[in-house]
Amino acid sequence: MTKPAALGQFSAAFRNDFAELLRWRRDVRSFRTDPVDDAALARCLDAFTLAPSVSLSQPWRIVALSSETARTAALENYKTFNAAALAGTEGEAAQSFASQKLKGLEDAPVQYAVFSDESATHGHPLDLSAIPRVLEYSVAAAIMQFWLALRAEGIGLGWVSRLDQSRLKADLDLAQSWTLVGYLCVGYPTQDSALPELQVQGHEERAACPVVLEL
Amino acid sequence: MTKPAALGQFSAAFRNDFAELLRWRRDVRSFRTDPVDDAALARCLDAFTLAPSVSLSQPWRIVALSSETARTAALENYKTFNAAALAGTEGEAAQSFASQKLKGLEDAPVQYAVFSDESATHGHPLDLSAIPRVLEYSVAAAIMQFWLALRAEGIGLGWVSRLDQSRLKADLDLAQSWTLVGYLCVGYPTQDSALPELQVQGHEERAACPVVLEL
Repeated sequence: MTKPAALGQFSAAFRNDFAELLRWRRDVRSFRTDPVDDAALARCLDAFTLAPSVSLSQPWRIVALSSETARTAALENYKTFNAAALAGTEGEAAQSFASQKLKGLEDAPVQYAVFSDESATHGHPLDLSAIPRVLEYSVAAAIMQFWLALRAEGIGLGWVSRLDQSRLKADLDLAQSWTLVGYLCVGYPTQDSALPELQVQGHEERAACPVVLEL
Repeated sequence: MTKPAALGQFSAAFRNDFAELLRWRRDVRSFRTDPVDDAALARCLDAFTLAPSVSLSQPWRIVALSSETARTAALENYKTFNAAALAGTEGEAAQSFASQKLKGLEDAPVQYAVFSDESATHGHPLDLSAIPRVLEYSVAAAIMQFWLALRAEGIGLGWVSRLDQSRLKADLDLAQSWTLVGYLCVGYPTQDSALPELQVQGHEERAACPVVLEL
């Protein structure tokens, strides 16, 4: 039995498992179509609530695309955007990558479009940030927590960023002032791997360790 | 004993501890000045290497501000920027918030400026993203992983975003094409809390659960 991490103390065993979690987290493209366990999903969504945000602004806006209409809008959006983008390229890698992501959009049982609401700090007395996109960074960080929580439950996430966001917002009747940070496909992966798919396919190599420039 | 999380399987005990980790992660403003354990810090920096990035571009550029010159540049930058920003406000909350963050910059033994290198996907065949700031989102997500890894080691992180990034890059002789995502103060916290500081001080409340809009 692990001693529970009460009072914010964590064991070496936990840290090892956490390192394993980071190692096994993947950008999943191939999903089973069976439903995701509701209770597990709800627990994972709590990761948003617990995420940091500048001035505690909580700027994430989560849209679940559940209806046939909403799903079709996203799928058609992806297809149109990629057809245009791929028209200018000849690489097989790019074509293959695009069709893998498309399969994720067709199969993943749960799909979320996650936005940053730029009005979340309007009138906020602490809103003096010099980094213009800090609200979007808060949303990206929250998605990261959600991603790790899902992986710990054996649920995969694939982050899709090739969508025409103006069209998506128009189709879903959402505020144009929201910024799309990620379109997330969620479901059980058909396979697990400790290596990124782009590395498995030989397109990219991961750096062995981060370069830190000392000044 | 926890069963090690080999083959990417995680236990309910691990998930409970991970939820505790999210609950105890804070934006730390008050640091002890003693050095951070080198081995622990190196383990935590691996969280960058394992972070997701669009097209495996690994766009994070980590600058450790270790010299007196570099530290003074950051501190003066913060002071000047905040004096200008606060001149237009009268709120005590804003003043108090600014001075807490200043104390973090004065005390934290380890400080990193973390940038996104916009050239990281130049010429990349898979670089067809429709979301313009997706490289910066990858860096924000990587910082989130680093933050959680630190907290699991009992080390705190404070994310500072009120700096004039053009001036910081000029002072540190860094490429102007880099984008500052976060300036991170790192060290052992003087206290632990399961509540955000802004909530403790009564400025903000955290939402009980994330709102998911079903479409």
